[in-house]
Parts: sequence; structure tokens; C-alpha cells
Amino acid sequence: MAVMTELNRFPEQGVTDRAALDALLDSQWAGVLSCVADGEPLAVPMLYARDGDRVLLHGSTGAGALRRVAGGAPAVLTVFALDALVVAPTTFESSVNYRSATIRGPLTPVDDLEPTLDLFSEVLVPGRTTEVRPPTRKELAATLALSLPIREGGWLLKVADDWPATPEEAGADPDVWSGLVPVRTRLGTPVPAPWAADLPVPPSVRRLTD
Amino acid sequence: MAVMTELNRFPEQGVTDRAALDALLDSQWAGVLSCVADGEPLAVPMLYARDGDRVLLHGSTGAGALRRVAGGAPAVLTVFALDALVVAPTTFESSVNYRSATIRGPLTPVDDLEPTLDLFSEVLVPGRTTEVRPPTRKELAATLALSLPIREGGWLLKVADDWPATPEEAGADPDVWSGLVPVRTRLGTPVPAPWAADLPVPPSVRRLTD
Repeated sequence: MAVMTELNRFPEQGVTDRAALDALLDSQWAGVLSCVADGEPLAVPMLYARDGDRVLLHGSTGAGALRRVAGGAPAVLTVFALDALVVAPTTFESSVNYRSATIRGPLTPVDDLEPTLDLFSEVLVPGRTTEVRPPTRKELAATLALSLPIREGGWLLKVADDWPATPEEAGADPDVWSGLVPVRTRLGTPVPAPWAADLPVPPSVRRLTD
Repeated sequence: MAVMTELNRFPEQGVTDRAALDALLDSQWAGVLSCVADGEPLAVPMLYARDGDRVLLHGSTGAGALRRVAGGAPAVLTVFALDALVVAPTTFESSVNYRSATIRGPLTPVDDLEPTLDLFSEVLVPGRTTEVRPPTRKELAATLALSLPIREGGWLLKVADDWPATPEEAGADPDVWSGLVPVRTRLGTPVPAPWAADLPVPPSVRRLTD
């Protein structure tokens, strides 16, 4: 599992299929938002929600990184999924199967905050907004929502999804095992908060793990 | 699952426990390396391997981002693990439990390449280097390895690991269910490459999923 693991180094892995980008974004919950602050890189893991041709981000109005990118600073959101360890017949050929997307800014503040936050919630936990009260004015005032457009030429998707190099390709002994070790991410059984132990799990949460 | 989800916004989540940092780094395989290129943020998902007080990165000598940070450009590696969706009694209080680390450069090229690459492989798949041939001179020449020191004051760990806000705290109906939906990442059963179907799964790979 050594060399060849800078995850985007393979030119052949550039994928232009927008549906594949959407599938990656919809399969994950969080990414890393990178921007530049005083010439230095600044990186913040963030939840996101894809809504058609845009990615929604949100956070506190007091959060430094969000305020910075809301002001139009260049930003890039990176989302990746590790799908398998690729155990090749040599360490040099060993690698990972993965999908990675980078989406470049600009990010723009969203004006219609309440419907946007509802949408964000609905993407992550569909149906939840019908089970809880709407946000208060105070809650809305504390919140900043940003939209990152998915523009032609503004995103890059890399996909590695292959068997390891063969022993011949790797210059290795044909008797050395090689293969994939899948990496699986799943939602587990919902755990009620102590004060909710006697309440039924609501449909929105049940559907997440159905 | 709306507001309060810029993952590092809670001041109380700064954790100074070095063992907790190591545990996060050792539990994951990949992170996002962010640097600055011509004033713009550049972000690259990368595999890494922690070795004591340093994080090892590697890739092709031809990879632009690696070459850039090898030249001393400021860089930050972000690693995060999503542990649970936190479904609160309101969307505003909904969030995620997570662990996130940012480790700042400088990165320095590693001179003793072969032992370092073996070490990288051993961290990811312990025992694998004893099952395969060593790298060739040509493979070593194609490889760049970098070391990111874990220095006092050079890293930041944020941890959210809590129940949702109570209905009282959230100003919500006490009959609304709330709780956690765990996010679980596991290695699955190894899948042999087609040409390795008749070979036994080696100890290094078996141990990964034991």
C-alpha cells in the first residue's frame, strides 16, 4: 500500500459524467472546504447538501471561514469516498479505489434562508422538517447559508475503480495474492436520546436505515 | 439536520489530548491536503500513514501538489471521521458527531525513501512488506515521500460526541423523538483479483478484517 496514492494522480481517472458527480455528493455527508487566509491555506470540514446544480453549506454567522468565503474569497469543496484498499502484488502498485470531487467557488450567501435551511435538512434527513417546529427568527439570524454552484468546468471528478495490477504488469511473483478490501460505510440502528427512549422512531429517521 | 454544522464551530470541542489525535489519524486512511497555488486554494485527497510524531504522505514525483508542498509551501492536512448524525428536536440543533484534525506543515521530503515507503505500507497493511518483493530502483525514483511533523501548536483536534440538545434546551415539543444515527465504516471481506482466486488470503490481509 505504498506508492501511487496521491489520489488524483492518474490522468485517466478524470470523469466528466455529471451523474457520477451527483452520486458521489449524494452518498456523503461532509467535505472539506479549503480557502486562503492571509496567504495560508485554511481548511474546514463541513456538512453539505446538494440541491440540483448547487451545493449548500451553512454554519454560524460567527464562523470565520464561512464569513471569509461568503465575501467571495476563492474556495474549493473536496468530497471523497474511499471504496476499497487495492492490495497489489507489489507495494508500489498498491493503492485505493476511491471517488473524489473538487468543486470550485465562488460561494454566494443565500437570501431565502428559511426554505434553504429546510431544504438542507430535507436532503440530509428527508421528511424531518414535517416532524419538528420551524426555525425561530433568532435561529435564522444566527445562521449563514452559502451556495456553491456546480458549473461547467468548475468541478473535477476522479474515480479509481479497478483490480490491482496483474503480477505481470507489476513485475511480481504470480503466487502473491492480490485483490481488494472493500471499505463500507453504513448508517447503524438509531439510538434514542435518554429522554426519547419511550418515543417511536419517526419515519424520517427510520427511512435513513431502511 | 440544519444549522450548527460547520464542523469546527464549537469552541468547547477543541481537544488537546494527543492520544485522541493519534486515535483519529490511525482510524482513517485518507485526508485532504490543502495548499495555496497562485493565490488560489488547492486541495488534494491523499492517503497518509502516521508514524509516531509525523504523518507520511507520498505520491508520484510528477504530482504538482506534492512538488509544491515539498518546496516548503504552507500546507494543512485535514482528516475527519463522521461518527453519527445527531437528530435533535429541532433542525437548528441538529448536527453531527465527528472528529476532525488539521495538521499544519511544513512538509519536508524524506531522504531514506525505501524504509519510509515500507513503513507507509506497514502502517496501512501491517505485514504486507514481508509478502511482496521490495521496490525496484525505478519505482523508488518515481516516488516522492513527504513528512508532516505533528508539532506542539501545529495541530487542532475537534470532537463532537454528545446527545442532541434536550427539548427544553431546544425550545421544542417534548414528544419529538431525538437521538443519534451511528455512521459505521468497516473493512469488508477481501475479494481476490481474478488471477488470485485460488491463492490463500495472506496473513496481512486477513488481519485487516479480523
